[in-house]
Amino acid sequence: MRVIADIAIVPLGVGLSLSPWVAAVERVLEEAGLEPRLHANGTNVEGEWDDVLGALKRCHEVLHEMGAPRIATNLRLGTRTDRAQTMDDKLASVRAKI
Amino acid sequence: MRVIADIAIVPLGVGLSLSPWVAAVERVLEEAGLEPRLHANGTNVEGEWDDVLGALKRCHEVLHEMGAPRIATNLRLGTRTDRAQTMDDKLASVRAKI
Amino acid sequence: MRVIADIAIVPLGVGLSLSPWVAAVERVLEEAGLEPRLHANGTNVEGEWDDVLGALKRCHEVLHEMGAPRIATNLRLGTRTDRAQTMDDKLASVRAKI
Amino acid sequence: MRVIADIAIVPLGVGLSLSPWVAAVERVLEEAGLEPRLHANGTNVEGEWDDVLGALKRCHEVLHEMGAPRIATNLRLGTRTDRAQTMDDKLASVRAKI
Repeated sequence: MRVIADIAIVPLGVGLSLSPWVAAVERVLEEAGLEPRLHANGTNVEGEWDDVLGALKRCHEVLHEMGAPRIATNLRLGTRTDRAQTMDDKLASVRAKI
Repeated sequence: MRVIADIAIVPLGVGLSLSPWVAAVERVLEEAGLEPRLHANGTNVEGEWDDVLGALKRCHEVLHEMGAPRIATNLRLGTRTDRAQTMDDKLASVRAKI
Repeated sequence: MRVIADIAIVPLGVGLSLSPWVAAVERVLEEAGLEPRLHANGTNVEGEWDDVLGALKRCHEVLHEMGAPRIATNLRLGTRTDRAQTMDDKLASVRAKI
Repeated sequence: MRVIADIAIVPLGVGLSLSPWVAAVERVLEEAGLEPRLHANGTNVEGEWDDVLGALKRCHEVLHEMGAPRIATNLRLGTRTDRAQTMDDKLASVRAKI
């Protein structure tokens, strides 16, 4: 089962600058063989369910190891069985109609 | 790693009445040994990461098997390493301060 | 336009105990004449769009006034024109099918 | 109060192809004078709270007028009082650390 996901991870108890933590998330996703696409409020990623959700678990583990005592994640997950669709497909489809 | 989650699953392409689909989600979560707590905009659940996220994967699989061609899920995930905390702990802590 | 909303407000830079802040959110929503229903991962609320979103703005303002330098909110919003539906309607509809 | 937002609007009861609806959302946001940045799972936008949330309300109204009987939106909202920060600031800050 393929999934298109949007991951927004917020570590708590680490002060106000979240960029080092978001950068760590990007690295974990890349090390998992995914190709994360950072945006201003999260990261797009796509792949097999177990690969994407496994990488997300690893993100929580790594941020805790780095010293974040508490993490709040917001996640969007899209799956479909009617047809294959990539993130690029989604973007192209919308842009053709704007 | 324990997680407290909030799951909101929206099947697309199945019409406007989502309650049969949300009921199926509740059943899948219960069959996974979790104790889901339905609210008006999702379901609270807590447990080990693999149990909770495994049950969520099963929800997507079951809804697709039931005929939903597309699913959009919004998920909140909270983990912490500073102390153990249950959903009841969270609720009691807030209610004591209102 | 009526809206059913789920509000999860996370203040940053205030330490790990969020319950005083969540309690303040509940009070603001109540003072706005809404009837918030706290759950383990947020708060359900319903009403006219301007009332609900106006109260949410007030929540951000109050939490900043209380000393939270940064706030991350996750919000679910549902509107429909096919029929009137309350939060109690949604819950009853699901529970009848579990 | 400035806000950085991420808007994901899902119309229900309109079939499986959401791109015409997402394109309409982009147009409404642009007509509101905002500069939406589409990504694979939503749209980034920034501005004054009332401008951003007012445009979101207009998105719901327009999609209902276009024929969507039900809409489920997921929204992330970030506000901060410690310093001014744009979406470009956020992205640059993370990218410098990856």
